[in-house]
Amino acid sequence: MLIIMHSDHTPEQLEAVVNKVKAMGLKPHVIPGAQSVAVGITGNSGPLDPREFDVFAGVSEAIPVTKPYKLASRDFKHADTLVPVGSYEVGGPFLVIAGPCAVESEDQTLRIARLVKAAGAHILRGGAFKPRTSPYSFQGLGSKGLEILKAAKQETGMPVVTEVLDQRTLEAVSEVADVLQVGARNMQNFALLRDLSRLRKPVLLKRGLSATLDEWLMSAEYLLSEGNAQVILCERGVRTFSDHARNTLDLTVVPAVKEKSHLPIIVDPSHATGVRSRVAPMARASAAAGAHGIMVEVHDRPEQALCDGAQALLPEDFKALMADLEQIAAALGHSLAKAP
Amino acid sequence: MLIIMHSDHTPEQLEAVVNKVKAMGLKPHVIPGAQSVAVGITGNSGPLDPREFDVFAGVSEAIPVTKPYKLASRDFKHADTLVPVGSYEVGGPFLVIAGPCAVESEDQTLRIARLVKAAGAHILRGGAFKPRTSPYSFQGLGSKGLEILKAAKQETGMPVVTEVLDQRTLEAVSEVADVLQVGARNMQNFALLRDLSRLRKPVLLKRGLSATLDEWLMSAEYLLSEGNAQVILCERGVRTFSDHARNTLDLTVVPAVKEKSHLPIIVDPSHATGVRSRVAPMARASAAAGAHGIMVEVHDRPEQALCDGAQALLPEDFKALMADLEQIAAALGHSLAKAP
Amino acid sequence: MLIIMHSDHTPEQLEAVVNKVKAMGLKPHVIPGAQSVAVGITGNSGPLDPREFDVFAGVSEAIPVTKPYKLASRDFKHADTLVPVGSYEVGGPFLVIAGPCAVESEDQTLRIARLVKAAGAHILRGGAFKPRTSPYSFQGLGSKGLEILKAAKQETGMPVVTEVLDQRTLEAVSEVADVLQVGARNMQNFALLRDLSRLRKPVLLKRGLSATLDEWLMSAEYLLSEGNAQVILCERGVRTFSDHARNTLDLTVVPAVKEKSHLPIIVDPSHATGVRSRVAPMARASAAAGAHGIMVEVHDRPEQALCDGAQALLPEDFKALMADLEQIAAALGHSLAKAP
Amino acid sequence: MLIIMHSDHTPEQLEAVVNKVKAMGLKPHVIPGAQSVAVGITGNSGPLDPREFDVFAGVSEAIPVTKPYKLASRDFKHADTLVPVGSYEVGGPFLVIAGPCAVESEDQTLRIARLVKAAGAHILRGGAFKPRTSPYSFQGLGSKGLEILKAAKQETGMPVVTEVLDQRTLEAVSEVADVLQVGARNMQNFALLRDLSRLRKPVLLKRGLSATLDEWLMSAEYLLSEGNAQVILCERGVRTFSDHARNTLDLTVVPAVKEKSHLPIIVDPSHATGVRSRVAPMARASAAAGAHGIMVEVHDRPEQALCDGAQALLPEDFKALMADLEQIAAALGHSLAKAP
Repeated sequence: MLIIMHSDHTPEQLEAVVNKVKAMGLKPHVIPGAQSVAVGITGNSGPLDPREFDVFAGVSEAIPVTKPYKLASRDFKHADTLVPVGSYEVGGPFLVIAGPCAVESEDQTLRIARLVKAAGAHILRGGAFKPRTSPYSFQGLGSKGLEILKAAKQETGMPVVTEVLDQRTLEAVSEVADVLQVGARNMQNFALLRDLSRLRKPVLLKRGLSATLDEWLMSAEYLLSEGNAQVILCERGVRTFSDHARNTLDLTVVPAVKEKSHLPIIVDPSHATGVRSRVAPMARASAAAGAHGIMVEVHDRPEQALCDGAQALLPEDFKALMADLEQIAAALGHSLAKAP
Repeated sequence: MLIIMHSDHTPEQLEAVVNKVKAMGLKPHVIPGAQSVAVGITGNSGPLDPREFDVFAGVSEAIPVTKPYKLASRDFKHADTLVPVGSYEVGGPFLVIAGPCAVESEDQTLRIARLVKAAGAHILRGGAFKPRTSPYSFQGLGSKGLEILKAAKQETGMPVVTEVLDQRTLEAVSEVADVLQVGARNMQNFALLRDLSRLRKPVLLKRGLSATLDEWLMSAEYLLSEGNAQVILCERGVRTFSDHARNTLDLTVVPAVKEKSHLPIIVDPSHATGVRSRVAPMARASAAAGAHGIMVEVHDRPEQALCDGAQALLPEDFKALMADLEQIAAALGHSLAKAP
Repeated sequence: MLIIMHSDHTPEQLEAVVNKVKAMGLKPHVIPGAQSVAVGITGNSGPLDPREFDVFAGVSEAIPVTKPYKLASRDFKHADTLVPVGSYEVGGPFLVIAGPCAVESEDQTLRIARLVKAAGAHILRGGAFKPRTSPYSFQGLGSKGLEILKAAKQETGMPVVTEVLDQRTLEAVSEVADVLQVGARNMQNFALLRDLSRLRKPVLLKRGLSATLDEWLMSAEYLLSEGNAQVILCERGVRTFSDHARNTLDLTVVPAVKEKSHLPIIVDPSHATGVRSRVAPMARASAAAGAHGIMVEVHDRPEQALCDGAQALLPEDFKALMADLEQIAAALGHSLAKAP
Repeated sequence: MLIIMHSDHTPEQLEAVVNKVKAMGLKPHVIPGAQSVAVGITGNSGPLDPREFDVFAGVSEAIPVTKPYKLASRDFKHADTLVPVGSYEVGGPFLVIAGPCAVESEDQTLRIARLVKAAGAHILRGGAFKPRTSPYSFQGLGSKGLEILKAAKQETGMPVVTEVLDQRTLEAVSEVADVLQVGARNMQNFALLRDLSRLRKPVLLKRGLSATLDEWLMSAEYLLSEGNAQVILCERGVRTFSDHARNTLDLTVVPAVKEKSHLPIIVDPSHATGVRSRVAPMARASAAAGAHGIMVEVHDRPEQALCDGAQALLPEDFKALMADLEQIAAALGHSLAKAP
């Protein structure tokens, strides 16, 4: 923490700040300047709240220095974290997670699972419980949907990512899922995060609609702090004024995450754009930006989809995208993960 | 829904859209124009997803017309909803909810409860379970905190607002709380909303950090659609680029809510600004903008507060604010609620 | 500037930073900490660019401490600045600037000028040159409009605020205007600001659609730095994701400006909301938040207005608003300015 | 325009709307619905202002249908526009514009020009007049800078992009520049746009910090509407809450522009990210997203740069990036432009 005093602070005000720091068991360092005086604080084991000092008379600003997350930080762990999912490792060669937005029926899910597998996808996605803005929208098949995912997994051998959104169904979901997805709207559902931190299962943590990078890593810290180290971050677009797409995909967060944290990061261009024609360009851009993988929605009959049909790639689009991703990975000296 | 065709659409493309509408059991109205053709749709009982039509070739844009919420809408219910809390009604005369950010101890809570009551506050606030960005921050006293709130309620006779953030502790919280608060980060925690919709208790629903007015009313709709009609909306600032305050208080939402919905709306200037010196100006502005009340944090020893001390009003500030609010209400022909 | 080193920086990296600071003629202060080392810099006369240090190996972050503005700062000048306009002073008793969005004809302008004066408005507003998003929209009457404003000024005796948006017509506009308005979209048109800084006329500087408080004050600094000290700030809403109003009125900026700067601040609720029914609530809120005045659009025949008729107050609404503002000012111990 | 009536509108209110439409010389189409009635309007030659109808009693909402731009629209001109610059065409094979942020001296500019040319860059960038947030920052060498750009152009044969920000120096800048750059802060400086629309020179129009796609295309329309058809769009990041980079690069706008408009679009990852280490990932992502080119800053001695040294690529980074871009273009079946 660095505390900047007002240019016209009194010696008493400075002393009060210094005494407060000492009273906290920390060490103040007074730094005289031309225009103002600053007080550096050392000795704290974690971050301090700047507003504890803002309230003192004579203080102009208190600036935090220590990052609020620790276990999620690259400073804490230098090597990349690899999260094992089935026979793959998220954080290694480029991975493609694909499947329908929602599990609608056994036939629909198996059909799409087969075709994404045939096209080279590594992991199957599909929602049994769906978070919907409206109470009147299709909310997913629930436990019936979990059964279907289990069947799809058995037939195709693909690991499965599916969303958990209710503490009451967490156990049921975690019996089927290889990766438990936390949706953007639940990124700061701390009760759910605590429940997940006690499991020893990979969690795919989507970035909240208006979450800063620090807040996102703090939510990861909730998982890590209780011992669940298998966290995969997923950028899916943020909420801004920009209205030409469903959300604003913030791809620069990919190199930023890789600098600040050791956790793997993937991108979901389907929810980010909301429109089929922009999914493939953004999937390609994600690979070129250095993401460890993508998660995309695919549907063979999007006009009948119960959820987000407009953003689902058609089977032939998905096949073409897989070929592009392979080329881009190769162009940058990487490769797609090999299916077993 | 209004569907705008591309200027160069083919007759076959138009026909496909018209057929799709008919297949949905709805009625298409073709409107020829100078530059383009539009198709109006009628007969739907609820909102349609524009993206169901965007996917058709020849379609330029599909524009939703029906609002996605119904029970929360002023169109559905014209008269203002009044939510009874103790002997007060939220939505009637101006109400002041005040108290500490967090319940820290019985002594602290009773001390502050007494002083806000003496200054004229109507309802007591205080968090037993605190949602914190960091797992290392003070998380609240939990069930011990609920006991303390119960004691404060008994001594002062004030109804109590406190936050619920875990489905697993909902029952315990609802035994003590007169109003169950849903925090901004849980506005779209649909599992929690469903649990709350089954209770018959007032819910104070804070606006999410990046929630549009429609999304906020849709979350209210989750509560209303299962029969819990006692919903109080609370604006607490949104997340924007603006960095001079903790959040950007969006006061214009107050008249907007009053136009679109029959539900009462209050404002939380403490979380919106995050800084003591700006709380009172924004509380006054909230009253002048037509809010039905405010919720503010008060602490008599903010430098010792375990949570958000920097934004807590001092007792004398709070007293002065109560006087200002009374004056402003009178200036606009209203009044503060009378304590029993 | 405070430079935070990575936890694993080498002594050579720290030395390189220290040497860089010395080479700039400044003084480094090394502050050892538990987790990391920081280097405080003193001796600079103005702000430093943090990115000059970010580029050094071993540096985790460089944090600016000095505010980038100086002359606009409350630190530099403690007393409130009062900007004389006609017989009024902006920054003193509450002022109301009112009139049509655009000057449409002599008849329209005189009619509205008379009625806002009769209702108690102090200063007349009206655009002769209009900045329009579309080249096909009405662009204002231009120099003919200036003539009309001159006539309105002569007849009513009210000082006039009008917008300047072209360096080529600055001279003509400044011959008529008592206050030169810089629109939100020109807040960082530095060429125009430089031209205005050489005049000795009041400038009403609207906040840019996505300007931070610091950037806004830096634009004021452009004016002040060349000797034009007559700057009035005007909040008019910012651009956010929030879609229930034309812009998001950021009223918290009012107390923030009053803390950071000595310049007066007014609010334009007409452009902020874009909808008539929300103008009066936000005008009242502006007064309650402590603004030094408001600027509102009034039209007696809004359905015929060539520009922004939907946000214009009707004459009777405006009269009622004037009465409310008087009441609110009185409630808070202030008053409206007295017309001469 | 589609006008939605309130569910409880009166027949008189509907009639008033219908009459208003007729009075405007347009054709109303009443569309009865289950919950409400809508009125479609046809016959207008350009967009209508929805707020002209919002003001009518009984109207719930007026929804614009016609896009506000015409000449910039893909509907108006189907074929891609190619903007000739020197021997290149922007909009054809991928182009790289590179050079220093600011022209600092003849030696610096020639040195960097030579090295970017040797690495394969096509067009030289460099600012003679610099728009700076602070009046105290380096403002560019001005006309001396133009001389230096002229020399660099003569020696290397590269066409030159440089910014114009003052109507008073437009003529001088346009004598040297092959492409006139309009900065983000001037995207809605309509006076400058009008001046540029009368020239017959390519204009590189950067997206404003908070401009929607429609607004950006409207600014292009200002240029096109007066006959200057040589417009190149440049995405450079927008202003959001996201704080891990200088701006939020909105790459999804690339496919969006290509759908809506025939104008070419390039990306500036240097200003978008503000940090060297993220420029190359975002440049690669831009190519993969389908941009027609990029504009990047390169400096061989960034620690001495007078402007934005922290975001300048080092010569070796730039060389590596050129190789990556060639590979990515090839991977997607495209190619980099050939130097003459």
